[in-house]
Amino acid sequence: VVVSVTKGIEYDSGLTMSGVLRTTMPRARPVALSGPTMAMEVGHDIPTAIVAASEDPEAALTTQQVFHRATFRVYTASDVLGVELGGALKNVVAVAAGIGDGLGFGDNSKAALITRGIVEIRRLGVARGAQPETFSGLSGLGDLALTCYSRLSRNRALGERLGKGEKAEAIVASSVAVAEGYPTTRSAFQLARKLDVATPIIDEVYALLYEGKNVVKALQDLTSRESKAEQ
Amino acid sequence: VVVSVTKGIEYDSGLTMSGVLRTTMPRARPVALSGPTMAMEVGHDIPTAIVAASEDPEAALTTQQVFHRATFRVYTASDVLGVELGGALKNVVAVAAGIGDGLGFGDNSKAALITRGIVEIRRLGVARGAQPETFSGLSGLGDLALTCYSRLSRNRALGERLGKGEKAEAIVASSVAVAEGYPTTRSAFQLARKLDVATPIIDEVYALLYEGKNVVKALQDLTSRESKAEQ
Repeated sequence: VVVSVTKGIEYDSGLTMSGVLRTTMPRARPVALSGPTMAMEVGHDIPTAIVAASEDPEAALTTQQVFHRATFRVYTASDVLGVELGGALKNVVAVAAGIGDGLGFGDNSKAALITRGIVEIRRLGVARGAQPETFSGLSGLGDLALTCYSRLSRNRALGERLGKGEKAEAIVASSVAVAEGYPTTRSAFQLARKLDVATPIIDEVYALLYEGKNVVKALQDLTSRESKAEQ
Repeated sequence: VVVSVTKGIEYDSGLTMSGVLRTTMPRARPVALSGPTMAMEVGHDIPTAIVAASEDPEAALTTQQVFHRATFRVYTASDVLGVELGGALKNVVAVAAGIGDGLGFGDNSKAALITRGIVEIRRLGVARGAQPETFSGLSGLGDLALTCYSRLSRNRALGERLGKGEKAEAIVASSVAVAEGYPTTRSAFQLARKLDVATPIIDEVYALLYEGKNVVKALQDLTSRESKAEQ
Protein backbone atom coordinates (compact mmCIF):
# COMPACT_ATOMS: atom_id res chain seq x y z
CA VAL A 1 0.00 0.00 0.00
CA VAL A 2 1.53 3.31 -1.10
CA VAL A 3 -0.15 6.47 0.17
CA SER A 4 0.14 9.66 -1.87
CA VAL A 5 -0.22 12.98 -0.07
CA THR A 6 0.92 14.97 -3.10
CA LYS A 7 -1.46 17.05 -5.19
CA GLY A 8 -1.00 17.77 -8.84
CA ILE A 9 -1.50 16.74 -12.45
CA GLU A 10 1.49 15.66 -14.54
CA TYR A 11 1.99 17.82 -17.60
CA ASP A 12 1.51 16.06 -20.98
CA SER A 13 0.42 12.71 -19.48
CA GLY A 14 -2.47 14.29 -17.56
CA LEU A 15 -1.87 11.71 -14.82
CA THR A 16 -2.67 12.31 -11.17
CA MET A 17 -0.17 11.08 -8.59
CA SER A 18 -1.80 7.65 -8.19
CA GLY A 19 -1.49 7.29 -11.97
CA VAL A 20 2.19 8.16 -11.78
CA LEU A 21 2.58 5.61 -8.98
CA ARG A 22 0.91 2.94 -11.11
CA THR A 23 3.37 3.66 -13.93
CA THR A 24 6.50 3.81 -11.79
CA MET A 25 5.62 1.18 -9.16
CA PRO A 26 3.48 -1.43 -10.94
CA ARG A 27 3.06 -3.58 -7.82
CA ALA A 28 1.93 -0.69 -5.60
CA ARG A 29 -1.67 -0.39 -4.38
CA PRO A 30 -2.01 3.41 -4.52
CA VAL A 31 -4.11 5.36 -2.00
CA ALA A 32 -4.72 9.11 -2.20
CA LEU A 33 -5.05 10.83 1.19
CA SER A 34 -6.61 14.22 0.52
CA GLY A 35 -8.98 16.78 1.97
CA PRO A 36 -9.25 20.13 3.75
CA THR A 37 -6.18 19.71 5.93
CA MET A 38 -3.95 22.70 6.56
CA ALA A 39 -0.80 21.08 7.99
CA MET A 40 -0.36 23.61 10.79
CA GLU A 41 -3.82 22.81 12.16
CA VAL A 42 -3.26 19.07 11.90
CA GLY A 43 0.00 19.57 13.81
CA HIS A 44 -1.88 21.38 16.57
CA ASP A 45 -4.46 18.57 16.87
CA ILE A 46 -7.35 20.74 15.71
CA PRO A 47 -10.25 18.54 14.48
CA THR A 48 -9.76 17.62 10.83
CA ALA A 49 -11.45 15.25 8.37
CA ILE A 50 -9.78 13.66 5.33
CA VAL A 51 -10.48 11.03 2.67
CA ALA A 52 -8.45 7.88 1.95
CA ALA A 53 -9.35 6.92 -1.61
CA SER A 54 -8.32 3.82 -3.50
CA GLU A 55 -9.67 1.54 -6.17
CA ASP A 56 -8.59 -1.21 -3.78
CA PRO A 57 -11.05 -1.14 -0.82
CA GLU A 58 -8.63 -3.01 1.46
CA ALA A 59 -5.87 -0.51 0.79
CA ALA A 60 -8.23 2.34 1.68
CA LEU A 61 -9.28 0.56 4.90
CA THR A 62 -5.66 -0.08 5.87
CA THR A 63 -4.85 3.60 5.39
CA GLN A 64 -7.90 4.57 7.46
CA GLN A 65 -6.81 2.26 10.29
CA VAL A 66 -3.25 3.59 10.30
CA PHE A 67 -4.10 7.31 10.35
CA HIS A 68 -7.57 7.59 11.97
CA ARG A 69 -7.90 9.13 15.42
CA ALA A 70 -10.27 11.40 17.33
CA THR A 71 -8.90 14.68 15.92
CA PHE A 72 -7.98 13.30 12.47
CA ARG A 73 -11.00 11.50 11.06
CA VAL A 74 -10.29 9.42 7.97
CA TYR A 75 -13.15 8.48 5.63
CA THR A 76 -12.79 5.93 2.84
CA ALA A 77 -13.73 6.38 -0.80
CA SER A 78 -13.25 4.46 -4.05
CA ASP A 79 -13.01 7.27 -6.61
CA VAL A 80 -9.29 7.92 -6.26
CA LEU A 81 -9.14 9.91 -9.51
CA GLY A 82 -11.93 12.26 -8.40
CA VAL A 83 -10.38 12.77 -4.98
CA GLU A 84 -7.02 13.63 -6.56
CA LEU A 85 -8.49 15.92 -9.24
CA GLY A 86 -10.52 17.79 -6.61
CA GLY A 87 -7.41 18.33 -4.51
CA ALA A 88 -5.34 19.47 -7.48
CA LEU A 89 -7.82 21.65 -9.39
CA LYS A 90 -9.02 23.56 -6.35
CA ASN A 91 -5.59 25.20 -6.22
CA VAL A 92 -6.27 26.95 -9.53
CA VAL A 93 -9.55 28.39 -8.23
CA ALA A 94 -7.74 29.40 -5.03
CA VAL A 95 -5.37 31.54 -7.10
CA ALA A 96 -8.43 33.27 -8.56
CA ALA A 97 -9.84 33.76 -5.04
CA GLY A 98 -6.55 35.32 -3.96
CA ILE A 99 -6.62 37.71 -6.92
CA GLY A 100 -9.98 38.93 -5.64
CA ASP A 101 -8.43 39.46 -2.20
CA GLY A 102 -5.55 41.42 -3.75
CA LEU A 103 -7.98 43.64 -5.63
CA GLY A 104 -9.93 44.32 -2.44
CA PHE A 105 -12.98 42.29 -3.37
CA GLY A 106 -15.01 40.92 -0.51
CA ASP A 107 -16.61 37.77 0.77
CA ASN A 108 -19.63 38.01 -1.56
CA SER A 109 -17.56 37.67 -4.71
CA LYS A 110 -15.46 34.88 -3.22
CA ALA A 111 -18.63 32.91 -2.42
CA ALA A 112 -19.76 33.34 -6.03
CA LEU A 113 -16.35 32.19 -7.28
CA ILE A 114 -16.45 29.05 -5.11
CA THR A 115 -19.94 28.25 -6.40
CA ARG A 116 -18.84 28.53 -10.04
CA GLY A 117 -15.45 26.97 -9.31
CA ILE A 118 -16.76 23.65 -8.05
CA VAL A 119 -19.00 23.36 -11.14
CA GLU A 120 -15.97 23.85 -13.37
CA ILE A 121 -13.81 21.41 -11.39
CA ARG A 122 -16.56 18.79 -11.53
CA ARG A 123 -17.06 19.25 -15.28
CA LEU A 124 -13.36 18.77 -16.04
CA GLY A 125 -13.02 15.92 -13.54
CA VAL A 126 -15.98 14.02 -14.96
CA ALA A 127 -14.62 14.43 -18.51
CA ARG A 128 -11.36 12.92 -17.23
CA GLY A 129 -13.24 9.90 -15.81
CA ALA A 130 -14.08 10.81 -12.20
CA GLN A 131 -17.45 10.42 -10.45
CA PRO A 132 -19.47 13.68 -10.22
CA GLU A 133 -20.49 13.22 -6.56
CA THR A 134 -16.86 13.06 -5.41
CA PHE A 135 -16.52 16.81 -6.00
CA SER A 136 -19.23 17.50 -3.42
CA GLY A 137 -17.09 15.77 -0.80
CA LEU A 138 -14.22 16.73 1.49
CA SER A 139 -11.58 16.66 -1.23
CA GLY A 140 -13.72 18.68 -3.66
CA LEU A 141 -15.96 21.30 -2.13
CA GLY A 142 -14.39 21.03 1.34
CA ASP A 143 -10.84 21.59 0.18
CA LEU A 144 -11.92 24.32 -2.25
CA ALA A 145 -13.69 26.32 0.47
CA LEU A 146 -10.76 25.92 2.87
CA THR A 147 -8.13 26.95 0.34
CA CYS A 148 -10.07 29.96 -0.91
CA TYR A 149 -10.68 31.36 2.58
CA SER A 150 -7.64 30.30 4.57
CA ARG A 151 -4.91 32.79 5.37
CA LEU A 152 -2.53 29.81 5.39
CA SER A 153 -3.01 28.86 1.72
CA ARG A 154 0.03 29.46 -0.49
CA ASN A 155 -2.13 29.33 -3.61
CA ARG A 156 -4.50 32.00 -2.33
CA ALA A 157 -1.45 34.08 -1.32
CA LEU A 158 0.03 33.74 -4.82
CA GLY A 159 -3.21 35.11 -6.24
CA GLU A 160 -3.30 37.92 -3.70
CA ARG A 161 0.15 39.13 -4.82
CA LEU A 162 -0.97 38.95 -8.45
CA GLY A 163 -4.04 40.97 -7.55
CA LYS A 164 -1.81 43.62 -5.98
CA GLY A 165 0.08 43.99 -9.24
CA GLU A 166 3.16 41.74 -8.89
CA LYS A 167 4.19 39.61 -11.86
CA ALA A 168 3.88 35.82 -11.70
CA GLU A 169 7.56 35.10 -12.47
CA ALA A 170 8.72 37.54 -9.78
CA ILE A 171 6.45 35.95 -7.16
CA VAL A 172 7.56 32.41 -7.97
CA ALA A 173 11.25 33.43 -8.04
CA SER A 174 10.96 35.04 -4.58
CA SER A 175 8.97 32.21 -2.92
CA VAL A 176 10.60 29.51 -0.80
CA ALA A 177 7.65 27.11 -1.08
CA VAL A 178 6.16 26.68 -4.55
CA ALA A 179 2.40 27.17 -4.74
CA GLU A 180 1.03 24.00 -6.34
CA GLY A 181 -1.55 26.07 -8.21
CA TYR A 182 1.13 27.51 -10.47
CA PRO A 183 2.16 24.30 -12.31
CA THR A 184 -1.32 22.81 -11.87
CA THR A 185 -2.85 25.69 -13.82
CA ARG A 186 -0.68 24.78 -16.82
CA SER A 187 -1.58 21.08 -16.60
CA ALA A 188 -5.28 21.82 -16.06
CA PHE A 189 -5.40 24.19 -19.02
CA GLN A 190 -3.75 21.57 -21.22
CA LEU A 191 -6.11 18.85 -19.97
CA ALA A 192 -9.20 20.99 -20.57
CA ARG A 193 -8.16 21.65 -24.19
CA LYS A 194 -7.46 17.95 -24.79
CA LEU A 195 -10.85 16.96 -23.38
CA ASP A 196 -12.64 19.94 -24.97
CA VAL A 197 -14.15 21.16 -21.70
CA ALA A 198 -15.16 24.78 -21.06
CA THR A 199 -13.12 26.10 -18.10
CA PRO A 200 -13.47 29.89 -17.92
CA ILE A 201 -11.85 30.26 -14.49
CA ILE A 202 -8.85 28.03 -15.31
CA ASP A 203 -8.46 29.83 -18.66
CA GLU A 204 -8.23 33.26 -17.08
CA VAL A 205 -5.80 32.12 -14.36
CA TYR A 206 -3.68 30.52 -17.10
CA ALA A 207 -3.68 33.74 -19.12
CA LEU A 208 -2.62 35.67 -16.02
CA LEU A 209 0.14 33.28 -14.96
CA TYR A 210 1.54 32.24 -18.34
CA GLU A 211 0.54 34.88 -20.88
CA GLY A 212 1.02 38.07 -18.90
CA LYS A 213 -2.63 39.06 -19.13
CA ASN A 214 -3.70 42.10 -17.14
CA VAL A 215 -5.48 41.18 -13.89
CA VAL A 216 -8.38 43.59 -14.17
CA LYS A 217 -8.96 42.61 -17.82
CA ALA A 218 -8.98 38.91 -16.84
CA LEU A 219 -11.62 39.52 -14.19
CA GLN A 220 -13.77 41.54 -16.55
CA ASP A 221 -13.61 38.76 -19.15
CA LEU A 222 -14.51 36.18 -16.53
CA THR A 223 -17.63 37.93 -15.26
CA SER A 224 -18.87 39.03 -18.69
CA ARG A 225 -18.68 35.43 -19.90
CA GLU A 226 -21.29 34.19 -17.44
CA SER A 227 -24.83 33.47 -18.57
CA LYS A 228 -27.95 35.12 -17.24
CA ALA A 229 -29.74 32.05 -15.89
CA GLU A 230 -28.12 30.25 -12.99
CA GLN A 231 -28.40 26.74 -14.40
CA VAL B 1 -44.39 41.30 -8.79
CA VAL B 2 -43.50 41.14 -5.09
CA VAL B 3 -39.85 40.56 -4.23
CA SER B 4 -38.97 38.90 -0.93
CA VAL B 5 -35.53 39.57 0.55
CA THR B 6 -36.42 37.90 3.85
CA LYS B 7 -35.03 34.53 4.88
CA GLY B 8 -36.80 32.11 7.13
CA ILE B 9 -39.26 29.27 7.57
CA GLU B 10 -42.59 29.91 9.27
CA TYR B 11 -43.07 27.76 12.35
CA ASP B 12 -45.92 25.20 12.18
CA SER B 13 -46.82 25.93 8.53
CA GLY B 14 -43.29 25.20 7.29
CA LEU B 15 -43.81 27.90 4.66
CA THR B 16 -40.99 29.94 3.17
CA MET B 17 -41.59 33.65 2.63
CA SER B 18 -42.92 33.22 -0.93
CA GLY B 19 -45.40 30.73 0.50
CA VAL B 20 -46.48 33.27 3.11
CA LEU B 21 -46.84 35.87 0.35
CA ARG B 22 -49.01 33.48 -1.66
CA THR B 23 -51.29 33.03 1.37
CA THR B 24 -51.51 36.69 2.36
CA MET B 25 -51.39 38.31 -1.09
CA PRO B 26 -53.15 35.88 -3.46
CA ARG B 27 -52.67 38.10 -6.53
CA ALA B 28 -48.93 38.63 -5.96
CA ARG B 29 -46.32 37.03 -8.23
CA PRO B 30 -43.64 36.27 -5.61
CA VAL B 31 -39.93 36.42 -6.38
CA ALA B 32 -37.18 35.44 -3.92
CA LEU B 33 -33.97 37.46 -4.22
CA SER B 34 -31.30 35.53 -2.35
CA GLY B 35 -27.62 34.67 -2.40
CA PRO B 36 -24.22 35.40 -0.83
CA THR B 37 -24.77 39.11 -0.30
CA MET B 38 -23.47 40.74 2.84
CA ALA B 39 -25.28 44.09 2.85
CA MET B 40 -22.22 46.12 3.80
CA GLU B 41 -20.33 44.86 0.75
CA VAL B 42 -23.28 45.50 -1.54
CA GLY B 43 -23.45 49.02 -0.13
CA HIS B 44 -19.78 49.53 -0.99
CA ASP B 45 -20.29 48.35 -4.60
CA ILE B 46 -18.07 45.30 -4.16
CA PRO B 47 -18.85 42.70 -6.88
CA THR B 48 -21.74 40.48 -5.80
CA ALA B 49 -23.90 37.82 -7.47
CA ILE B 50 -27.47 36.93 -6.47
CA VAL B 51 -30.40 34.83 -7.69
CA ALA B 52 -33.90 36.06 -8.55
CA ALA B 53 -36.12 32.98 -8.33
CA SER B 54 -39.76 32.68 -9.23
CA GLU B 55 -42.15 30.08 -10.57
CA ASP B 56 -43.21 32.88 -12.92
CA PRO B 57 -40.34 33.35 -15.43
CA GLU B 58 -41.49 36.85 -16.38
CA ALA B 59 -41.50 37.96 -12.74
CA ALA B 60 -37.91 36.66 -12.35
CA LEU B 61 -36.82 38.51 -15.50
CA THR B 62 -38.47 41.73 -14.36
CA THR B 63 -36.63 41.49 -11.04
CA GLN B 64 -33.36 40.84 -12.87
CA GLN B 65 -33.87 43.89 -15.07
CA VAL B 66 -34.67 46.14 -12.14
CA PHE B 67 -31.71 45.18 -9.94
CA HIS B 68 -28.97 43.97 -12.31
CA ARG B 69 -25.85 46.10 -12.78
CA ALA B 70 -22.10 45.59 -13.21
CA THR B 71 -21.32 45.10 -9.50
CA PHE B 72 -24.63 43.39 -8.60
CA ARG B 73 -25.16 40.53 -11.02
CA VAL B 74 -28.65 39.01 -10.88
CA TYR B 75 -29.21 35.48 -12.22
CA THR B 76 -32.66 34.01 -12.75
CA ALA B 77 -33.91 30.66 -11.47
CA SER B 78 -37.27 28.88 -11.30
CA ASP B 79 -36.90 26.84 -8.09
CA VAL B 80 -38.06 29.54 -5.68
CA LEU B 81 -38.58 27.02 -2.85
CA GLY B 82 -35.02 25.68 -3.16
CA VAL B 83 -33.52 29.16 -3.29
CA GLU B 84 -35.44 30.18 -0.16
CA LEU B 85 -34.68 26.98 1.77
CA GLY B 86 -30.98 27.28 0.93
CA GLY B 87 -30.92 30.85 2.20
CA ALA B 88 -32.80 29.97 5.40
CA LEU B 89 -31.20 26.64 6.36
CA LYS B 90 -27.64 27.81 5.84
CA ASN B 91 -28.09 30.05 8.90
CA VAL B 92 -28.42 26.98 11.12
CA VAL B 93 -25.15 25.53 9.82
CA ALA B 94 -23.55 28.96 10.27
CA VAL B 95 -24.41 28.82 13.97
CA ALA B 96 -22.56 25.48 14.13
CA ALA B 97 -19.60 27.02 12.27
CA GLY B 98 -19.51 29.86 14.79
CA ILE B 99 -19.51 27.39 17.68
CA GLY B 100 -16.35 25.89 16.19
CA ASP B 101 -14.83 29.38 16.05
CA GLY B 102 -15.74 29.98 19.68
CA LEU B 103 -14.13 26.71 20.71
CA GLY B 104 -10.93 27.64 18.83
CA PHE B 105 -11.39 25.12 16.03
CA GLY B 106 -9.74 25.96 12.75
CA ASP B 107 -10.41 26.18 9.06
CA ASN B 108 -10.09 22.42 8.49
CA SER B 109 -13.06 21.58 10.68
CA LYS B 110 -15.12 24.40 9.20
CA ALA B 111 -14.49 23.06 5.70
CA ALA B 112 -15.67 19.62 6.83
CA LEU B 113 -18.79 21.17 8.41
CA ILE B 114 -19.66 23.04 5.20
CA THR B 115 -19.24 19.83 3.19
CA ARG B 116 -21.61 17.91 5.46
CA GLY B 117 -23.87 20.91 5.94
CA ILE B 118 -24.80 21.33 2.30
CA VAL B 119 -25.63 17.61 2.08
CA GLU B 120 -28.00 17.97 5.03
CA ILE B 121 -29.59 21.16 3.64
CA ARG B 122 -30.12 19.50 0.27
CA ARG B 123 -31.65 16.39 1.86
CA LEU B 124 -34.18 18.40 3.86
CA GLY B 125 -34.88 20.76 0.96
CA VAL B 126 -35.56 17.95 -1.50
CA ALA B 127 -37.90 16.26 1.00
CA ARG B 128 -39.77 19.58 1.20
CA GLY B 129 -40.12 19.67 -2.60
CA ALA B 130 -37.10 21.63 -3.87
CA GLN B 131 -34.77 20.66 -6.74
CA PRO B 132 -31.47 19.09 -5.59
CA GLU B 133 -29.24 21.11 -7.97
CA THR B 134 -30.45 24.41 -6.53
CA PHE B 135 -28.41 23.78 -3.38
CA SER B 136 -25.21 23.73 -5.43
CA GLY B 137 -25.93 27.29 -6.55
CA LEU B 138 -25.39 30.78 -5.17
CA SER B 139 -28.23 30.59 -2.64
CA GLY B 140 -27.17 27.14 -1.38
CA LEU B 141 -23.48 26.44 -1.35
CA GLY B 142 -22.48 30.04 -2.09
CA ASP B 143 -24.46 31.56 0.77
CA LEU B 144 -23.44 28.74 3.13
CA ALA B 145 -19.72 29.28 2.49
CA LEU B 146 -20.07 33.04 2.88
CA THR B 147 -22.03 32.89 6.11
CA CYS B 148 -19.76 30.31 7.71
CA TYR B 149 -16.57 32.26 6.98
CA SER B 150 -17.64 35.90 7.11
CA ARG B 151 -16.82 38.04 10.13
CA LEU B 152 -19.97 40.01 9.27
CA SER B 153 -22.43 37.13 9.80
CA ARG B 154 -24.72 37.52 12.79
CA ASN B 155 -25.50 33.79 12.77
CA ARG B 156 -21.85 32.82 12.87
CA ALA B 157 -21.34 35.37 15.65
CA LEU B 158 -24.23 33.86 17.65
CA GLY B 159 -22.52 30.49 17.42
CA GLU B 160 -19.16 31.95 18.39
CA ARG B 161 -20.62 33.34 21.64
CA LEU B 162 -22.25 29.95 22.35
CA GLY B 163 -18.88 28.30 21.74
CA LYS B 164 -17.29 30.65 24.27
CA GLY B 165 -19.76 29.52 26.90
CA GLU B 166 -22.56 32.10 26.85
CA LYS B 167 -26.15 30.90 27.07
CA ALA B 168 -28.49 31.24 24.10
CA GLU B 169 -31.17 33.25 25.93
CA ALA B 170 -28.58 35.72 27.25
CA ILE B 171 -27.13 36.26 23.79
CA VAL B 172 -30.51 36.84 22.16
CA ALA B 173 -31.61 39.16 24.97
CA SER B 174 -28.47 41.31 24.58
CA SER B 175 -28.52 41.49 20.76
CA VAL B 176 -29.95 44.45 18.85
CA ALA B 177 -30.31 42.54 15.59
CA VAL B 178 -31.81 39.07 15.83
CA ALA B 179 -29.78 36.30 14.16
CA GLU B 180 -32.15 34.58 11.76
CA GLY B 181 -30.55 31.24 12.57
CA TYR B 182 -32.14 31.24 16.03
CA PRO B 183 -35.82 30.98 15.01
CA THR B 184 -34.91 29.12 11.80
CA THR B 185 -33.31 26.32 13.85
CA ARG B 186 -36.62 25.71 15.59
CA SER B 187 -38.59 25.69 12.31
CA ALA B 188 -36.00 23.50 10.57
CA PHE B 189 -35.98 20.99 13.43
CA GLN B 190 -39.79 20.80 13.34
CA LEU B 191 -39.80 20.44 9.55
CA ALA B 192 -37.20 17.67 9.62
CA ARG B 193 -39.26 15.66 12.13
CA LYS B 194 -42.45 16.12 10.08
CA LEU B 195 -40.70 14.96 6.90
CA ASP B 196 -38.71 12.26 8.70
CA VAL B 197 -35.33 13.48 7.43
CA ALA B 198 -32.05 12.84 9.26
CA THR B 199 -30.49 16.20 10.16
CA PRO B 200 -27.64 15.67 12.63
CA ILE B 201 -26.25 19.23 12.42
CA ILE B 202 -29.66 20.91 12.79
CA ASP B 203 -30.49 18.54 15.67
CA GLU B 204 -27.40 19.44 17.65
CA VAL B 205 -27.82 23.19 17.08
CA TYR B 206 -31.45 22.82 18.21
CA ALA B 207 -30.39 20.97 21.36
CA LEU B 208 -27.88 23.73 22.10
CA LEU B 209 -30.23 26.64 21.48
CA TYR B 210 -33.49 25.25 22.87
CA GLU B 211 -32.63 22.42 25.24
CA GLY B 212 -29.58 23.82 27.01
CA LYS B 213 -27.30 21.06 25.81
CA ASN B 214 -23.62 21.43 26.61
CA VAL B 215 -21.58 22.71 23.65
CA VAL B 216 -18.72 20.25 23.90
CA LYS B 217 -21.12 17.32 24.30
CA ALA B 218 -23.07 18.45 21.23
CA LEU B 219 -19.93 18.52 19.13
CA GLN B 220 -18.83 15.13 20.35
CA ASP B 221 -22.23 13.66 19.48
CA LEU B 222 -22.10 15.24 16.04
CA THR B 223 -18.70 13.86 15.06
CA SER B 224 -19.26 10.41 16.55
CA ARG B 225 -22.48 10.07 14.54
CA GLU B 226 -20.72 10.22 11.19
CA SER B 227 -20.14 7.10 9.16
CA LYS B 228 -16.79 5.74 8.08
CA ALA B 229 -17.25 5.86 4.30
CA GLU B 230 -17.63 9.29 2.73
CA GLN B 231 -20.67 8.50 0.59
